[in-house]
Amino acid sequence: MKNDEITNLIITKALFLFNTKGINVTSIQDIMDATALPKGAIYRRFTNKEAIVLAAFEKGNEMIWNRILQESEQHDTMKDKLLAIPSLYYDAVNNPPIEGGCPLLNAAIESDGSFPELQEKTSEFYTRLLVFLRSLLEQGIRDHELREDVDTKSLASFLISTIEGAIMSSRLCKNNDHILYAVEQFENILPIYSR
Amino acid sequence: MKNDEITNLIITKALFLFNTKGINVTSIQDIMDATALPKGAIYRRFTNKEAIVLAAFEKGNEMIWNRILQESEQHDTMKDKLLAIPSLYYDAVNNPPIEGGCPLLNAAIESDGSFPELQEKTSEFYTRLLVFLRSLLEQGIRDHELREDVDTKSLASFLISTIEGAIMSSRLCKNNDHILYAVEQFENILPIYSR
Repeated sequence: MKNDEITNLIITKALFLFNTKGINVTSIQDIMDATALPKGAIYRRFTNKEAIVLAAFEKGNEMIWNRILQESEQHDTMKDKLLAIPSLYYDAVNNPPIEGGCPLLNAAIESDGSFPELQEKTSEFYTRLLVFLRSLLEQGIRDHELREDVDTKSLASFLISTIEGAIMSSRLCKNNDHILYAVEQFENILPIYSR
Repeated sequence: MKNDEITNLIITKALFLFNTKGINVTSIQDIMDATALPKGAIYRRFTNKEAIVLAAFEKGNEMIWNRILQESEQHDTMKDKLLAIPSLYYDAVNNPPIEGGCPLLNAAIESDGSFPELQEKTSEFYTRLLVFLRSLLEQGIRDHELREDVDTKSLASFLISTIEGAIMSSRLCKNNDHILYAVEQFENILPIYSR
């Protein structure tokens, strides 16, 4: 794959289409229309639509990853670092970090049963997030914000599940309350794991 | 729409295809192959693929709804009734109530940005679940299982988000631990809302 401006344009426009309309609804023609490029310019850079999908979601995941690192670095305590993650989706309905909602959630559902390579890549990104959340929780234990007996793997998995499910609920119902309820419940729950 | 055996066959086979492979990956040809019916037999009953999708997910939602009612009726306390819901997905990877995962979650993601009528129907089903969970929580308050000041709307939304997100995580990673972690955390959390 050539790493040039046109490649980046294709990836950016394709990510927007895949994340808003869906992977399988988006055709090469849609990508041609969005980029104003002829078919040849696309196929010189990507062997097929699947290759564009994989490159687009890799970019989407990196964008989310960078936003999460950025947000969490702006806070000092484990609690504030954790709460910074769902805060990216306070306006999940109209203004998520990437238009169309969470690319991990969208790719997870759309790849399930039909696109094993995308599922594998998305699962790797999920694991990266899980490891990061566990590292925050473990730092919280070292800093005496959390009790030593907290099962960090279980709690980190639960936090990701709740955030992703709340993004789904908010976008489905066009109502940001669901993401706010998830955060409200986190804040109620954290004290039970605190010293 | 004719309500006959062939209509039911089409809906059943289509639901399987839509929920496993995905709505947009499934063609009318796939439905013809799965039902061994000619195109005419399908189009005499449904005006287009969208009509089949709506009928299939209506059936999927009813199946899940009936399983939830069935499971919750087998228990007496609010806590056991609540925990009966995620128990349907303890083997989310290999043996969910409907093959391919949760139809609400799948339809929510696949309809987002591309199929407003399906999104609307799925959102109505979400609301039905939310109302049901709130009614369990309110019964819990009346039975003194929960404190009177519990925000039942927030807690019910949170419970649905966590279960749906955990189904996504388990199916993505082909690892049922994520749904079990969600249940484990519920059990840790419920005491903070108890009297």
